[in-house]
Amino acid sequence: MSFSRPLRQAQDERDRREILEKKLNIALRNIACFSVDPEKIAGQNCENMIGVTQVPLGVAGPIKITRLGGKTKEYYIPLATTEGALVASVSRGCKAVYLSGGATVRTEQVGTTRAPVFQVKNLEHAQEIITWVKDNFEKLKQVTESTDKYITLFEVKPFLSGRNLFLRFVYDTSEAMGMNMVTVATHKAVGLLENKFGVTCISLSGNMCVDKKPSWLNFILGRGKQVWAEVFVKRDTVREVLKTTPEKIVSVVASKTMVGSQMSGSLGFNSHFANIVAALFIATGQDPAHIVEGSMGITSAHVENNGDLYFSVYLPAVLVGTVGGGTGLATQKEALKLLGLGAGCKGQAFELAQIVAGAVLAGELSLVAALAEGHLARAHERLGRGKKT
Amino acid sequence: MSFSRPLRQAQDERDRREILEKKLNIALRNIACFSVDPEKIAGQNCENMIGVTQVPLGVAGPIKITRLGGKTKEYYIPLATTEGALVASVSRGCKAVYLSGGATVRTEQVGTTRAPVFQVKNLEHAQEIITWVKDNFEKLKQVTESTDKYITLFEVKPFLSGRNLFLRFVYDTSEAMGMNMVTVATHKAVGLLENKFGVTCISLSGNMCVDKKPSWLNFILGRGKQVWAEVFVKRDTVREVLKTTPEKIVSVVASKTMVGSQMSGSLGFNSHFANIVAALFIATGQDPAHIVEGSMGITSAHVENNGDLYFSVYLPAVLVGTVGGGTGLATQKEALKLLGLGAGCKGQAFELAQIVAGAVLAGELSLVAALAEGHLARAHERLGRGKKT
Amino acid sequence: MSFSRPLRQAQDERDRREILEKKLNIALRNIACFSVDPEKIAGQNCENMIGVTQVPLGVAGPIKITRLGGKTKEYYIPLATTEGALVASVSRGCKAVYLSGGATVRTEQVGTTRAPVFQVKNLEHAQEIITWVKDNFEKLKQVTESTDKYITLFEVKPFLSGRNLFLRFVYDTSEAMGMNMVTVATHKAVGLLENKFGVTCISLSGNMCVDKKPSWLNFILGRGKQVWAEVFVKRDTVREVLKTTPEKIVSVVASKTMVGSQMSGSLGFNSHFANIVAALFIATGQDPAHIVEGSMGITSAHVENNGDLYFSVYLPAVLVGTVGGGTGLATQKEALKLLGLGAGCKGQAFELAQIVAGAVLAGELSLVAALAEGHLARAHERLGRGKKT
Amino acid sequence: MSFSRPLRQAQDERDRREILEKKLNIALRNIACFSVDPEKIAGQNCENMIGVTQVPLGVAGPIKITRLGGKTKEYYIPLATTEGALVASVSRGCKAVYLSGGATVRTEQVGTTRAPVFQVKNLEHAQEIITWVKDNFEKLKQVTESTDKYITLFEVKPFLSGRNLFLRFVYDTSEAMGMNMVTVATHKAVGLLENKFGVTCISLSGNMCVDKKPSWLNFILGRGKQVWAEVFVKRDTVREVLKTTPEKIVSVVASKTMVGSQMSGSLGFNSHFANIVAALFIATGQDPAHIVEGSMGITSAHVENNGDLYFSVYLPAVLVGTVGGGTGLATQKEALKLLGLGAGCKGQAFELAQIVAGAVLAGELSLVAALAEGHLARAHERLGRGKKT
Repeated sequence: MSFSRPLRQAQDERDRREILEKKLNIALRNIACFSVDPEKIAGQNCENMIGVTQVPLGVAGPIKITRLGGKTKEYYIPLATTEGALVASVSRGCKAVYLSGGATVRTEQVGTTRAPVFQVKNLEHAQEIITWVKDNFEKLKQVTESTDKYITLFEVKPFLSGRNLFLRFVYDTSEAMGMNMVTVATHKAVGLLENKFGVTCISLSGNMCVDKKPSWLNFILGRGKQVWAEVFVKRDTVREVLKTTPEKIVSVVASKTMVGSQMSGSLGFNSHFANIVAALFIATGQDPAHIVEGSMGITSAHVENNGDLYFSVYLPAVLVGTVGGGTGLATQKEALKLLGLGAGCKGQAFELAQIVAGAVLAGELSLVAALAEGHLARAHERLGRGKKT
Repeated sequence: MSFSRPLRQAQDERDRREILEKKLNIALRNIACFSVDPEKIAGQNCENMIGVTQVPLGVAGPIKITRLGGKTKEYYIPLATTEGALVASVSRGCKAVYLSGGATVRTEQVGTTRAPVFQVKNLEHAQEIITWVKDNFEKLKQVTESTDKYITLFEVKPFLSGRNLFLRFVYDTSEAMGMNMVTVATHKAVGLLENKFGVTCISLSGNMCVDKKPSWLNFILGRGKQVWAEVFVKRDTVREVLKTTPEKIVSVVASKTMVGSQMSGSLGFNSHFANIVAALFIATGQDPAHIVEGSMGITSAHVENNGDLYFSVYLPAVLVGTVGGGTGLATQKEALKLLGLGAGCKGQAFELAQIVAGAVLAGELSLVAALAEGHLARAHERLGRGKKT
Repeated sequence: MSFSRPLRQAQDERDRREILEKKLNIALRNIACFSVDPEKIAGQNCENMIGVTQVPLGVAGPIKITRLGGKTKEYYIPLATTEGALVASVSRGCKAVYLSGGATVRTEQVGTTRAPVFQVKNLEHAQEIITWVKDNFEKLKQVTESTDKYITLFEVKPFLSGRNLFLRFVYDTSEAMGMNMVTVATHKAVGLLENKFGVTCISLSGNMCVDKKPSWLNFILGRGKQVWAEVFVKRDTVREVLKTTPEKIVSVVASKTMVGSQMSGSLGFNSHFANIVAALFIATGQDPAHIVEGSMGITSAHVENNGDLYFSVYLPAVLVGTVGGGTGLATQKEALKLLGLGAGCKGQAFELAQIVAGAVLAGELSLVAALAEGHLARAHERLGRGKKT
Repeated sequence: MSFSRPLRQAQDERDRREILEKKLNIALRNIACFSVDPEKIAGQNCENMIGVTQVPLGVAGPIKITRLGGKTKEYYIPLATTEGALVASVSRGCKAVYLSGGATVRTEQVGTTRAPVFQVKNLEHAQEIITWVKDNFEKLKQVTESTDKYITLFEVKPFLSGRNLFLRFVYDTSEAMGMNMVTVATHKAVGLLENKFGVTCISLSGNMCVDKKPSWLNFILGRGKQVWAEVFVKRDTVREVLKTTPEKIVSVVASKTMVGSQMSGSLGFNSHFANIVAALFIATGQDPAHIVEGSMGITSAHVENNGDLYFSVYLPAVLVGTVGGGTGLATQKEALKLLGLGAGCKGQAFELAQIVAGAVLAGELSLVAALAEGHLARAHERLGRGKKT
């Protein structure tokens, strides 16, 4: 069978590119322009490489962020995006946040999860396994943690429906996002349980992890890191920087992100978390499929008694790391450096999650303000002039 | 006020980069390596540009796709990713699909939507506007379509809760994804309604669009394009290429993507649509925030009476375009060329949606097969050897 | 096999009761006390009857309701309940509504639905059926409407996933709730489709109806009747009758029914619609399983510029009838009479849906006010004194 | 003010009834027929009483239930219903279960919950309270448990969004459903926290309880009691009693309760749990508004290797009690006696939850079988002959 033979026999990315250029009669000159090391990539990040996609990288900020009970820092936020107005909008939000003394952030470590599903014989069989798991947490901790020195098992939570027994393993994975680590660790525990109980693991991932799908489980209990960010914006700053009033911002939040999201059965009660999360994840080498979970969350706004604006965001499932995955690639590593991250120091994954929250706060504040004044269409019109669409 | 003044006064991306390098004492050499034109980008895709993020681009396939009632074509699928094993896995799926005669795809045009929210005085006021909108569709059509020759208004659907009246405008936007176009067009209709009824538009987007958030509204009614893809895989091909059996694949789908997704309150009854959608969207210049909606969907599997495997995917809300947004960037344009797209010809946005469905089918089939045989952890272990995490 | 033989051979409800009393050594004296006709019930409402459950029936109100663009009427609301404080609370709400000039209600007829699921061979087969259904609506209308002179087919909406093709039939069923009617009518259409396309109907109800389960489909598109009710309550009335302020009521709605419901992934953004819907449904002979859908909905509150309170409720899926089901039973018929309903006159099912909305508005207003002042626990303490728990 | 004065001045239920009969010119003769004690009811179950609603009470079964690791018992199931075919259908299911050796049930005590919402000043304030709550669980236990000797505090779980801090208190409430008890107990804890932290409780119930609304929080974590019931039905029994095959039953479950419920965004992956739960709750004096939560759940079916049928149900949030609420009313008490319950003995609330699961299993099995053979419409046609609708 000759499925794609020439391509499979290609020696390197240049070879592959040339085969495709010839076969399809096209030129791939820009894709060929890159500085990353294709050999390193082949083994870790991307098979059948033919080059790179260049995603424009802008910088917003600086944003000032105070960690609850910790230090205040400033960051320039790297945003990889193709959507005009995004960087400008986040920057505007950063300015408003900056002039208000910065954002305060809070984080909870939930952990990275993997939930295999087993097919049990009946309720009795399920009960037997559930009881053993509860009574032998230390044993499971030892088995899973033996696979990686950077992994710690927090909890194993059982869920049962019919013959499907799900065991949700929750881990701390240090500075890595950790899906690889938890997969390997959980696989080891699965082997132990299969042998001990004569039970079959149907799938190492049983979709109660829940990885890369929007889900109420993650929304309610969190996954990876839960982060909150808030800012109190002076009334004057709202007027001068955001060109609107606290009252109008509260009104947009109430009608759009509260009622509109309810009426549409949305799993995100916000305006555009996804735009900022996507740009920051791509820039810093996070898994872009995690935009799905990472962009879930809620926006809140109040008018204070003194007329100032309280504005905040909550993101329940931010999965980020500063080592592993795409974080080792040349441009992504530089973007992390821009944030003062990436040496693998302890606490950096937390810091990155807080920067995500801060950037989302700024971007959300700016768009909600633009909507409050009917500026969205105007921005799009201006952009529209430059393009075919 | 000196918020970020030096950066704002920078003349170009090189200048900006140097300011940051000096200020933060870092080197941004790789970010500086690109072939795209920064001036063109500044006006359309990214403000405050400092360079690009290089995302490794691999190629999977070819995949063979038959459009229902149409032609059969083959495509090499460009995937921009930093996650090892993804391209290889999609390629394996493509091979299985290819050997089975290819995938069949079906598409429904739902349209791109924008749903402003108005604050009405009371039920009577709402009723008055709703009635007028129903009776004057042609008027609204004329007003909105006057803003762009590539836009067609399909429908205006009202939703009401309390004083919040949402009008969901649904448009055909030709070969563009079209969020800019529908924003501008709807803005015009909003002006008309505000004048006519003395009603205030709280927000041009009322979150019943629903843009870039997971939502049941889009899951149930669709948004952009709804796409279905299916394949009948011979039992032998399942064994030889996918290394498992149809029965085991059905079992994974039943326990994981059906029950696991139910038990976790997920809005995606699939295994990893988001991985493939993300890689294809980034490669072809789609808006990466649309991964959120685009990756919703359902995977199905059956064992046929003759022992073969039926496998299919359904994606209710694929928002893609072949003009506008990031599609005009140099590397993204080349990726579209690789797919034979991008000249702006009629029907290409549909074709791209179908390629998305085909690629998702292949990638989903391959991962489900790997899970069925417990191969996931093994792949991760192999990858893990190369990395710190 | 002797499964339950004596009971099956019993001649009537008295006989059955005596068998159980003897067998279990218990007395069923109260269950035996009733005025309904057991023979009529046996054929229509309840098999194996042994008597009745007596549910205490209280009356709240009167409530004054104005139908949008129609008449104003007053109603005493019959509530069958075992939960102390409910009738008193609804009554208090009715008083506040009454003093404010009454509630305004709006209704939309969505229709009663039945959605069979068919197993198609492949996408082409599905396409063939979907196309035929779209092109032959008149034929389906004729076939379904031939089953009952009180039924009208509105729409047949297709949904497809994998090989599962759902056709959602939507009907007007006059003054009946109509599940029986739509089941019989849809069955006829199913027979036609099975014959014509060689397709198998897996189930006459494919859970996209959706009957008696909470669902976003019904929440978003409505089912049965959608109803809205609103009231503008004078600031003084809020203080004198509800013992609180508009501001506090708005605050409870914002934190509890908005944010609390979002954070918990609820399908109901309200306080206790279910209590009122349950009591009114049981009293008037509605199907109590429809409490599930009927109690979905959203509560809204605003403080007006003049300091008054705007309060409203939205119920998307109220399934009620004034003929059929339990509406013909003696006590239920009397409860309908109390509302001036039940002669089977045209428009009475609508009127009943509006009464449901009005009663829910009153009950919701009263509880939210009680919560705003921390009175809930006090009411429970008072009740608690009378009972063991 | 004369709002409803005559009614409020009425001396007893007879007086009230007569006022209404005269005022509305109707007769309420059947509502007047009852055996319960109106004075006792007035203080505990229903204000403004005018009589009772008579709900026909049928009996299904017996069903045989084995508690996991416990005893096997038989029960006649009391069902208060106005919907023809329900009792007969549950009875048919009971027979199939009986002939298969009975159902096995498993229960988990989650507990009754109450979740007040507080308005905090900022993240720091929230953090302070959350930390104190975690560190002072014993203090909260003591305060809450001091309110009732039958209550035990299990857990206090914090949730935070914006300035809304929710504390979800979870309690064991012995044989009572317990909403009154947990309301009073939590109120006491709220007072303590308000004083200690200068924080305002916006609402004693913050909708993260979640009481009487369908919610993913309760679906995922459970509320009240989680119950599972399963049965292995011999192939012959499926054929003889249920008139179908295991394969067809599995097919209905796959297409209807799995895919149909997914496609419609349902929170219940079952066929008609609500029918059985409603009838059993009304018969035994449970709060009928709890049908909403109690009817959530999942149905599963498999064909065994030997051709037999595995069938099971899972109900995550069953709130029942054998003391308090409506359980003390004369007819409801007799229905509990029929089940051997009601003396207030320890473990009876658990037993009742298990009976609910068993009855739901039987009813679900019977309806799914009827759907599998297309018998639903036939049953409705037969019923339809007897009625106007």
